[in-house]
Amino acid sequence: METMRWLEEGLLELLDQTGLPGTVNYLRCSDYHEVATAIKNLSVRGAPAIGAAAAYGLALAAGKIETGSREAYIAELREAAGELAATRPTAVNLCWAVDRVMRRLVGAQSDDPAVLRQVVLDEAHAIHQEDESGNRRMGKYGRELIPQGARILTHCNAGALATAGYGTALGVIRAAREEGKDISVFAGETRPLLQGARLTAWEMCQEGIPVTVITDNMAGYLMAKGMVDLVLVGADRITAGGDVANKIGTYSLAVLAKEHNIPFYVAAPISTVDLSLTSGSEITIEERDMAEVTHLAGQQIAPTGVQVWNPAFDVTPARLVAAIITERGIVRPPYMESIRKIVEG
Amino acid sequence: METMRWLEEGLLELLDQTGLPGTVNYLRCSDYHEVATAIKNLSVRGAPAIGAAAAYGLALAAGKIETGSREAYIAELREAAGELAATRPTAVNLCWAVDRVMRRLVGAQSDDPAVLRQVVLDEAHAIHQEDESGNRRMGKYGRELIPQGARILTHCNAGALATAGYGTALGVIRAAREEGKDISVFAGETRPLLQGARLTAWEMCQEGIPVTVITDNMAGYLMAKGMVDLVLVGADRITAGGDVANKIGTYSLAVLAKEHNIPFYVAAPISTVDLSLTSGSEITIEERDMAEVTHLAGQQIAPTGVQVWNPAFDVTPARLVAAIITERGIVRPPYMESIRKIVEG
Repeated sequence: METMRWLEEGLLELLDQTGLPGTVNYLRCSDYHEVATAIKNLSVRGAPAIGAAAAYGLALAAGKIETGSREAYIAELREAAGELAATRPTAVNLCWAVDRVMRRLVGAQSDDPAVLRQVVLDEAHAIHQEDESGNRRMGKYGRELIPQGARILTHCNAGALATAGYGTALGVIRAAREEGKDISVFAGETRPLLQGARLTAWEMCQEGIPVTVITDNMAGYLMAKGMVDLVLVGADRITAGGDVANKIGTYSLAVLAKEHNIPFYVAAPISTVDLSLTSGSEITIEERDMAEVTHLAGQQIAPTGVQVWNPAFDVTPARLVAAIITERGIVRPPYMESIRKIVEG
Repeated sequence: METMRWLEEGLLELLDQTGLPGTVNYLRCSDYHEVATAIKNLSVRGAPAIGAAAAYGLALAAGKIETGSREAYIAELREAAGELAATRPTAVNLCWAVDRVMRRLVGAQSDDPAVLRQVVLDEAHAIHQEDESGNRRMGKYGRELIPQGARILTHCNAGALATAGYGTALGVIRAAREEGKDISVFAGETRPLLQGARLTAWEMCQEGIPVTVITDNMAGYLMAKGMVDLVLVGADRITAGGDVANKIGTYSLAVLAKEHNIPFYVAAPISTVDLSLTSGSEITIEERDMAEVTHLAGQQIAPTGVQVWNPAFDVTPARLVAAIITERGIVRPPYMESIRKIVEG
């Protein structure tokens, strides 16, 4: 099942992940505003996936620009770029993808809107395709860290659904399985929006990889009982120093893993690295609507009038991260050196 | 709002907590089997509350025994005692209350069923009344540990609803508030059954104590941001060595509290202490139906065919517990000495 697909007639289809696993429905977008809305309301989610979706959003916007001058064309597309990049603040892949398309456009030598449009679309396709092929390389590097028989705890969904395909953390799990390793997965359900229970469990079931859902608060006891060999998660932004922003709850898992001497690994493409930031404290953490916590499946679960804190992400300091798996190889501490080297080299 | 009330006509009313906060409904029980069912399906829950409910369940059973001999009477009630004590395995208060009633009955010198029935009912009333008055004393001891302005993270519901009234952990919070301390509460929602979001948030709202609901996986980030001054929870069983069984997720909070140098306190009556066990590994941990995890508000949230692990409790080792607050005072490490002393003395 594809997370997104570009139709020849110039439309973008996005799998509406809010309905999964119960309802499989594709949103058909003809306008970049629709893509922005789909990113905001999490119809498409996952750092690499929202990057690729935003790039295709620019392609939709590009298709509607009819101005004759290259400069005016770029200026008009920049407006769409600004709106798409602002949809969510934490995942850096979003800005990375938008910036990459805009840089490519700025480098194009034509005033013909049709040519410029094709440049934008080609770059969106490149981002989409490179993401999936990168994930497959990431899987091959990362599976070296997965022992035969490993029981892997993961969080949220860093799978095919969070990317252009194959997945980051779940891609590593797929790659380990493809080489015949007999592994199993614990999926933390990932409140408030249950991406673990809904999406990761579903992806693993489809692959035939044994998966057990737990509520997030069971992770510590699961580790204490010796039922976890490693923790493996994705990322939304990684600083030059190796601090990792990822779905809320990731930091708790990293602390618990340290307490139980269990390695904690992160799998993410190079596009997730933000060399402009040294410390995780500089990362903007999105806070989302309180109704995500107070309501579930349309039903109110907390009393009216209660206050809610709903950060969508947290930051895990580099000292808790045993290794970061990328499509160019595995980096280890000290991250201040190893990350810059792999990004620039 | 009372958790349970004995009606003069010989009926027990139990507040059905599964519907809270949306629906306030009392179950009227005329038969001890109904009480056993209410305990099993969590209509009444919380270690001290299920102890008191089971004691009243014995009173219902006692009212129906018509045999003429004291021995036959006791034998018949022992059957009800066995069924009530077996409803849930982890909270020791259940067995404690049932044993206490049975011991009192065995000590009674009469063959008159009416007299024996009154003995059972009087003991049930005593357990119920002592629980609430004990909680108020516990609150007065415990509030010494709550600084002015404290931001308190609690888990599940150790409140009036979990007891005969006033609460254990929430009783300490109430007592701190009653002496004018300007405190606030973070309530972990406590998946799968959301006792924190549904019950603790509701109790605190009713008291006018500021309460903020978080999903369980936010606790680590909340602590990392310096937003928590202490953690305070209840207990379902405490061993002679100070290991604490409590609602699943408690252990994770204790590890996180240690990582952030935040004190972790337990509030529980002496009836929660099980001197027959030294180590928490000896405590039976109840595992409940997987539908509690896969379904929420009647809606399926995880794919069909997925496996689930659903332990209802976990065990926090004594080394992570800064102090245990009881109705006889506060005990501190080394627990092997302090707990025995307070229980026996």
